[in-house]
Amino acid sequence: MSSGNPGDKPIDRVGVAVLGCGVVGSQVVRLLHEQASDLAARVGAPLELKGVAVRRLDAPRDVDVPTDLLTTDAMGLVARDDVDLVIEVIGGIEPARPLILAALENGASVVTANKALLAEDGPTLYEAAEKAGRDLYFEAAVAGAIPILRPLRESLSGDRVTRVMGIVNGTTNYILDKMDTYGSGFEEALAEAQELGYAEADPTADVEGFDAAAKAAILASLAFHTRVTASDVHREGITEVTAGDVASATEMGSVVKLLAIAELNEASSGESAVSARVHPAMIPRSHPLASVREAYNAVFVESEAAGQLMFYGPGAGGSPTASAVLGDVVTAARHRLQGTTGAGESSYADRAVLPMGETLTRYHVAIDVDDRAGVLAAVATAFAEHDVSIQTVRQEGRGEDAQLVVVSHEATDAQLSATVEHLRTMEIVRDVTSVMRVEGTE
Amino acid sequence: MSSGNPGDKPIDRVGVAVLGCGVVGSQVVRLLHEQASDLAARVGAPLELKGVAVRRLDAPRDVDVPTDLLTTDAMGLVARDDVDLVIEVIGGIEPARPLILAALENGASVVTANKALLAEDGPTLYEAAEKAGRDLYFEAAVAGAIPILRPLRESLSGDRVTRVMGIVNGTTNYILDKMDTYGSGFEEALAEAQELGYAEADPTADVEGFDAAAKAAILASLAFHTRVTASDVHREGITEVTAGDVASATEMGSVVKLLAIAELNEASSGESAVSARVHPAMIPRSHPLASVREAYNAVFVESEAAGQLMFYGPGAGGSPTASAVLGDVVTAARHRLQGTTGAGESSYADRAVLPMGETLTRYHVAIDVDDRAGVLAAVATAFAEHDVSIQTVRQEGRGEDAQLVVVSHEATDAQLSATVEHLRTMEIVRDVTSVMRVEGTE
Ligand SMILES: NC(=O)c1ccc[n+]([C@@H]2O[C@H](COP(=O)([O-])OP(=O)(O)OC[C@H]3O[C@@H](n4cnc5c(N)ncnc54)[C@H](OP(=O)(O)O)[C@@H]3O)[C@@H](O)[C@H]2O)c1
Ligand SMILES: NC(=O)c1ccc[n+]([C@@H]2O[C@H](COP(=O)([O-])OP(=O)(O)OC[C@H]3O[C@@H](n4cnc5c(N)ncnc54)[C@H](OP(=O)(O)O)[C@@H]3O)[C@@H](O)[C@H]2O)c1
Repeated sequence: MSSGNPGDKPIDRVGVAVLGCGVVGSQVVRLLHEQASDLAARVGAPLELKGVAVRRLDAPRDVDVPTDLLTTDAMGLVARDDVDLVIEVIGGIEPARPLILAALENGASVVTANKALLAEDGPTLYEAAEKAGRDLYFEAAVAGAIPILRPLRESLSGDRVTRVMGIVNGTTNYILDKMDTYGSGFEEALAEAQELGYAEADPTADVEGFDAAAKAAILASLAFHTRVTASDVHREGITEVTAGDVASATEMGSVVKLLAIAELNEASSGESAVSARVHPAMIPRSHPLASVREAYNAVFVESEAAGQLMFYGPGAGGSPTASAVLGDVVTAARHRLQGTTGAGESSYADRAVLPMGETLTRYHVAIDVDDRAGVLAAVATAFAEHDVSIQTVRQEGRGEDAQLVVVSHEATDAQLSATVEHLRTMEIVRDVTSVMRVEGTE
Repeated sequence: MSSGNPGDKPIDRVGVAVLGCGVVGSQVVRLLHEQASDLAARVGAPLELKGVAVRRLDAPRDVDVPTDLLTTDAMGLVARDDVDLVIEVIGGIEPARPLILAALENGASVVTANKALLAEDGPTLYEAAEKAGRDLYFEAAVAGAIPILRPLRESLSGDRVTRVMGIVNGTTNYILDKMDTYGSGFEEALAEAQELGYAEADPTADVEGFDAAAKAAILASLAFHTRVTASDVHREGITEVTAGDVASATEMGSVVKLLAIAELNEASSGESAVSARVHPAMIPRSHPLASVREAYNAVFVESEAAGQLMFYGPGAGGSPTASAVLGDVVTAARHRLQGTTGAGESSYADRAVLPMGETLTRYHVAIDVDDRAGVLAAVATAFAEHDVSIQTVRQEGRGEDAQLVVVSHEATDAQLSATVEHLRTMEIVRDVTSVMRVEGTE
């Protein structure tokens, strides 16, 4: 455990640099100004804004930044002697990574909202922070304004977390919510989300689950004290979710959500291992996450002693994200004044990360079948051959429209997907029309 | 800001004393034992249980405590040199207060779940902690396992909280939930709650709102950086809530909840002042708090930048409460090892606490009236005379059963209650059958 840096000179004000002044950065700068006296009282010393780094000096901004504070020389700003704390809200890997590393090396603490960088290369950043005796905080990187990382790192540090299940991407939740409410298809709901500013012109990062996967990696790392990067996370987006899937969920009293799941499973070795994944799933409407509407986010946490907790709020937006950034800023600034640091990386448990095939889950499968005797028995046999037991079967329609909807018990994803492949090859199966995992049912 | 105690000798293990081994204490002792290696890894040094103080050595316990650790001499335990951290889970004012003060004076950090003591005399404890250069943590005192105090103190420290509205008493929420679901009266629902162990034989502390009021004081202090004690909190319990009130709430798409509310209002001076109160209120069924069922707790927080957040989970019970206690223990133990402390009391804002009469709220009033022309006009005039404007009026029934249900706009509680008194004196008003505040509607 590091305790600041023994060579530190005491400071009586905290010099702050903000890197990036876009959606989030402009609100950070606004709050640093508007809340200055409250922040000073809470930190125990004033926060002094030393500079704001941007790409274009003359771009229009949502906040007035004095001209002499604006600079395009981010690296020069970070290197200044009077900068004690650097707020990185540029985003992406380059130049965010070298800037954060330089800041730490120069003895500044760092607060960032950069989930992409954290999920790709968190350990490098943590190690640099540890070496420098400085804090690295990133509450804003997951679920925007919702305090979730600090509760996981600190409030639950006396407990054993067993599962974290989050709706951590507002764009996809908005789209799925519209599909659920209006029965619309994915393309239609996406177009509406884009029109209303809930989805970007290029929605790939959201709808393909990349954004949620970065957050899943961060959540899994903190919850299970194990290094988990984005590449460890099994990722499926929502582009394949159909109106039929959503209707099928409704039939069984469920709703489709894109979930970021981090949980403890048992590896084939018998040891506990981490499963980290992002995929659409059906959850019962009675589950607390089911009522998370529109672009809101929520994170559901299960732990041995605390039981079930949920944290709910806005997952994005300039001000909400800036609120989370500034909470970290106050803590890091207090530590800087005290000559101490908070808890750094905690990866002592060093668990294995399970491949998706070994992860335990359940499937909902809808199959168009020939309407004749023995169909159900044949389908049940296929499940049994892969050692998957069936929880419920519903038969619907007759003749051409005959359909079987099967919900399995828990099995590995490999067994379940092999079962689906098997079904597709069966003569009596005309089509497998919907395959979706089922979560939140125990 | 204190940073530990300059005279401290470095320690490489943390001696822990647990005071009380009842519902919560036994689970604390269990987790200290079962999670020992995880706790050591998270703290950076082992936690060593030095003793467990109880009233009766031979009482049956939910956990095995080695006989040599049990003692009835709590004060002697707290005075030991090798005790660095004291966990107080006895409850009540005496002997908890002198024990905590002695622990701090002897150089131990303190973690407690004692809402009653915190709400009655928090500042004395804070001052003792500040003087000793030690931590005083109490996450478990409000809403059991739900991490809410740390998010308020730290995560939201860069934001401006404007309102905290919580369901913080599981017993009353259980009772009101049953009244809502089955249409039962208060007495019947209470009896059921007692039978199932959700309410105590003497339910006063819960149903009269004392427990919630203590929590409201703690929430208000932290949210608004102002000293608020239980005696500052306006308190009304649920014993007067009738099946009729609950039905009336349902009529208008609402549900009755016992709320602990802490919010910023404007005082007559024009300055911002704190309102802290506990009372039953009707909230819309679409409000996130409305879906908090059974004995669950939840705290809804509104702030300027973050917007609306909600924290949900089990509000009581041995294990959940112990989870919150141990989260604090890990943090306090880390600080002890580092020779530092976390943020202490923050009361710099020092706002006035508003009397209930000056607090802004809205009323729902149901009145049995004579069924004749001019009744509505007369009632409306009564509201207008007190400068209260009406949002909606619903007329129901005819003749003997004629009823008016009025929902007001916002006004001070004094104006609103004066209006109700006025209504009671009016000749055309046969009875005022339901009066309840309306919250969560803007
Ligand atoms: N937006 C949200 O709701 C949200 C929520 C949670 C987390 N985050 C995270 O917050 C971070 C910032 O997001 P954002 O939405 O604020 O992004 P944004 O609006 O695109 O802003 C990026 C800012 O960085 C500046 N910038 C870009 N390249 C730079 C360079 N080489 N040197 C200096 N400045 C440079 C840009 O300057 P110009 O203004 O001159 O172009 C702009 O001000 C990202 O990591 C994102 O993932 C965002
Ligand atoms: N129970 C919950 O769900 C919950 C939730 C949140 C917060 N809390 C808070 O946690 C605290 C403890 O509650 P609890 O439910 O665990 O209470 P409890 O079951 O009544 O346990 C109290 C413990 O304190 C011991 N004790 C009483 N007087 C003592 C004395 N003078 N010296 C030493 N030990 C003494 C008792 O000893 P014996 O066992 O020998 O009688 C018992 O072990 C209270 O502040 C409560 O408000 C409780």
